[in-house]
Amino acid sequence: MPDPRFFQSSGPFRLGELAGIGGGRLAEPADEGLQIGNIAPLQDAGPGDLTFFDNRKYLDAFRDTAAAACVVAEKDAARARAGMPLILSETPYKTFALIAQAFYPRPAIEPARHESAVIAPSAVIGEDCRIDPFAVIEAGAEIGAGTAIGAGTVIGRRVVVGRDCRIGAHVSLSHCLVGDRVTIHPGARIGQDGFGFAPDPAGHVRVPQIGRVVISDDVEIGANSTIDRGAGPDTVIGAGTWIDNLVQIGHNVRVGRGCILVAQSGVSGSTVLGDFVAAGGQVGFAGHLKIGAGAQLAAKAGVMSDVPAGETYCGAPAQPIRDFFREVAVLRRLAKKGTTK
Amino acid sequence: MPDPRFFQSSGPFRLGELAGIGGGRLAEPADEGLQIGNIAPLQDAGPGDLTFFDNRKYLDAFRDTAAAACVVAEKDAARARAGMPLILSETPYKTFALIAQAFYPRPAIEPARHESAVIAPSAVIGEDCRIDPFAVIEAGAEIGAGTAIGAGTVIGRRVVVGRDCRIGAHVSLSHCLVGDRVTIHPGARIGQDGFGFAPDPAGHVRVPQIGRVVISDDVEIGANSTIDRGAGPDTVIGAGTWIDNLVQIGHNVRVGRGCILVAQSGVSGSTVLGDFVAAGGQVGFAGHLKIGAGAQLAAKAGVMSDVPAGETYCGAPAQPIRDFFREVAVLRRLAKKGTTK
Amino acid sequence: MPDPRFFQSSGPFRLGELAGIGGGRLAEPADEGLQIGNIAPLQDAGPGDLTFFDNRKYLDAFRDTAAAACVVAEKDAARARAGMPLILSETPYKTFALIAQAFYPRPAIEPARHESAVIAPSAVIGEDCRIDPFAVIEAGAEIGAGTAIGAGTVIGRRVVVGRDCRIGAHVSLSHCLVGDRVTIHPGARIGQDGFGFAPDPAGHVRVPQIGRVVISDDVEIGANSTIDRGAGPDTVIGAGTWIDNLVQIGHNVRVGRGCILVAQSGVSGSTVLGDFVAAGGQVGFAGHLKIGAGAQLAAKAGVMSDVPAGETYCGAPAQPIRDFFREVAVLRRLAKKGTTK
Repeated sequence: MPDPRFFQSSGPFRLGELAGIGGGRLAEPADEGLQIGNIAPLQDAGPGDLTFFDNRKYLDAFRDTAAAACVVAEKDAARARAGMPLILSETPYKTFALIAQAFYPRPAIEPARHESAVIAPSAVIGEDCRIDPFAVIEAGAEIGAGTAIGAGTVIGRRVVVGRDCRIGAHVSLSHCLVGDRVTIHPGARIGQDGFGFAPDPAGHVRVPQIGRVVISDDVEIGANSTIDRGAGPDTVIGAGTWIDNLVQIGHNVRVGRGCILVAQSGVSGSTVLGDFVAAGGQVGFAGHLKIGAGAQLAAKAGVMSDVPAGETYCGAPAQPIRDFFREVAVLRRLAKKGTTK
Repeated sequence: MPDPRFFQSSGPFRLGELAGIGGGRLAEPADEGLQIGNIAPLQDAGPGDLTFFDNRKYLDAFRDTAAAACVVAEKDAARARAGMPLILSETPYKTFALIAQAFYPRPAIEPARHESAVIAPSAVIGEDCRIDPFAVIEAGAEIGAGTAIGAGTVIGRRVVVGRDCRIGAHVSLSHCLVGDRVTIHPGARIGQDGFGFAPDPAGHVRVPQIGRVVISDDVEIGANSTIDRGAGPDTVIGAGTWIDNLVQIGHNVRVGRGCILVAQSGVSGSTVLGDFVAAGGQVGFAGHLKIGAGAQLAAKAGVMSDVPAGETYCGAPAQPIRDFFREVAVLRRLAKKGTTK
Repeated sequence: MPDPRFFQSSGPFRLGELAGIGGGRLAEPADEGLQIGNIAPLQDAGPGDLTFFDNRKYLDAFRDTAAAACVVAEKDAARARAGMPLILSETPYKTFALIAQAFYPRPAIEPARHESAVIAPSAVIGEDCRIDPFAVIEAGAEIGAGTAIGAGTVIGRRVVVGRDCRIGAHVSLSHCLVGDRVTIHPGARIGQDGFGFAPDPAGHVRVPQIGRVVISDDVEIGANSTIDRGAGPDTVIGAGTWIDNLVQIGHNVRVGRGCILVAQSGVSGSTVLGDFVAAGGQVGFAGHLKIGAGAQLAAKAGVMSDVPAGETYCGAPAQPIRDFFREVAVLRRLAKKGTTK
């Protein structure tokens, strides 16, 4: 049960209503009117809760759950406890996510402009924005309607932020254009100089960084992540991409649509990620690479060459995951042999 | 000699007094009254300084040190310079740490509430707190007595912080409960949304994150580290755990008591670390793992499976350290053979 | 063409003038008076733009570029399009960097002291400084002439910052001395406690950290990077070193002159880097190592032992790069054999 200090439920809902919200349908015999008071994971769910099942690793928990009802794929429905009311969905986790949003909608932004904020007269602030204490909005910046700017956050000169964005505390934005419905978590740094210089024993020579950062709609950027502006071309983050905490994006990088970059991963300068690329935690991409659409990089991969679309790579230097695990197996076998000789 | 601009010594102390402070005892013949003016490492110590020895790598420095006295384990006492006054201890570094605390106690918190801080009327601030400029304490937050809140730091709605905590500048706390005597270094981000969504080509679907972060007593959290709140369960950091800089802790992670997480390590969602787990720098843990109590992970390990209690693992995928180095050796041998053929 | 909202060109320049600025010379037949309106990469350059060529990977782009003129090494001059006006240079990228600085000089610091900044009466602020909103400058701090302090940045007690520095937003400095012409990007954390404690099951014992951070002239420090102060000795960053984003520098580390540390790399306590060491992204150095001058560490290297001057190391544990790739090759061959048997 979520801590009511922090979270207010919009429930209860009737089961039939939730099936509709989640884009699923009730399994027969359906009890449309069943009251669902809350949502919970399989292990924690109690009577009155809705849960979901989509990972066979948790099959026992699925059978034993005390939940009132469960979202499940049709192919797994037969594994449920006899009589368990079910919402069937081809994408159970997505269905559950939509239902969870109904129970716990994102808190609305309460429009306000704290008197301590320093807003340049030439900045343009849309309607219904929330500007928290000690925010700084510099000359010529534009903030779209319904956007929230966290405490202490600095929106640099002429930066453009779209509508309905949520920008956390202590964020700094400069030299960038941000789309609509973008979420930026606390401490993210966007638009500072890229790491550009001509190495020289007499003193590295700074190369002016004269590109921008362009962040498309519906992007999510994690806490304390850093995105440098382009050296000449722009650094671009495609629509709907999710970037986790402590991720580094170098200058001129282009990230496609719908990509996923897990925490502490890093992309070196001028590398291009196609749409729906997914990189696990602590993955590193060398510079000037092309990563094909839908490619997946296992956690900790060190990507030193282009990756074809749709492939899963692993290791450092990264290679197709099957080859990687074959090498792991060969090496383990050799090491064992070495010790039994 | 520490820079007096930044550090004031509480010394001198008599050697006998220091033995007591450090929980050691003087070796015979003891000169209890010997004046010790300061502390210093072996190489830098001069007359009047106390030093310590606990790593045989530095044996020469131990013999040659100009220090006035030394903390040492009984088993190493015979290696000291003839006539060197010694404090004997089974835990020389701990003894030295306690003595160092006597010379350089943490500066006391000077209670004050800067007039620029924005403190909601409904926030409850204990006695003798220090609130630095531009701090923001939101509605319903509670701060225990004797706690310091750094400049610009944001304590979110209804967050609870215990007594005698030290929270640095530009920290953001939301959806969390913090125990007593917790230190949080500048720029740490605690309680923001975890990286929760149902992947979907039409747009990843946000999963509401309705758990908290619970930080137990005596925890240390490094600069710019990030700890996401739970998705449903809480994210929990056990008592006395030390977390270094730039560390990432994902949602639902449970870290036990007395753990050590060195800089740039990361723990993926729902992984559980037992008590006294120690992870080196840049270690990565995959999600949903169980790491047994006292397990040690060498720097850069990529932990992809459960680790039994007490084991030391290394490499990526991580494996017992002996196996890891056996593989390293086998491979080096093969590579050499390949070149001499 | 750089976005004029963010970047103003100081051009046009005459080609002869640019050759002089960049320390190059015109190839015969020289058109000194040719008007150059802008700079651009090979692929994007149009008529009126100057470009540069120094990587044969881009040879086709060099031949096909629409640029008005190009900076190139003498040895590559013959590969240019017939009739292309050339600036010859032994260091084409450096020459281009100097020319780029002429077109896009760093914006001057506009002296100002925002009324909201909290500056202790005993702090000493040089002439022509810029202090942004909500900056905090504590007692006894000294800021050199011409230095900019970003919004919300905290300069701790008695910290000394030199002349002509540029310190971004939300930086925290404590227990440190900073030289002249240093750039610190937003969110960097410098001078907080190092990760110093004596491990103890009854509660790790804090070791007072009584050293400083000393940052030499012309250093660059990336966004959200962290540099801990020394435990007793200082943590030192040598002149002209460039540190990228999200880099961690532990206590007592000494980094030489002109080093390069790419994003997300980390240096453990007491390790010493000689001059001109270059570490790629996500490199990790264990503690107490000596890395010789000019050594290079490939991205993701895990450095567990000393590295001789001038060597290039790779892998984890790091080894000479030739040995590393030999092992990669041997292992790939064995894995393939294993599958065809």
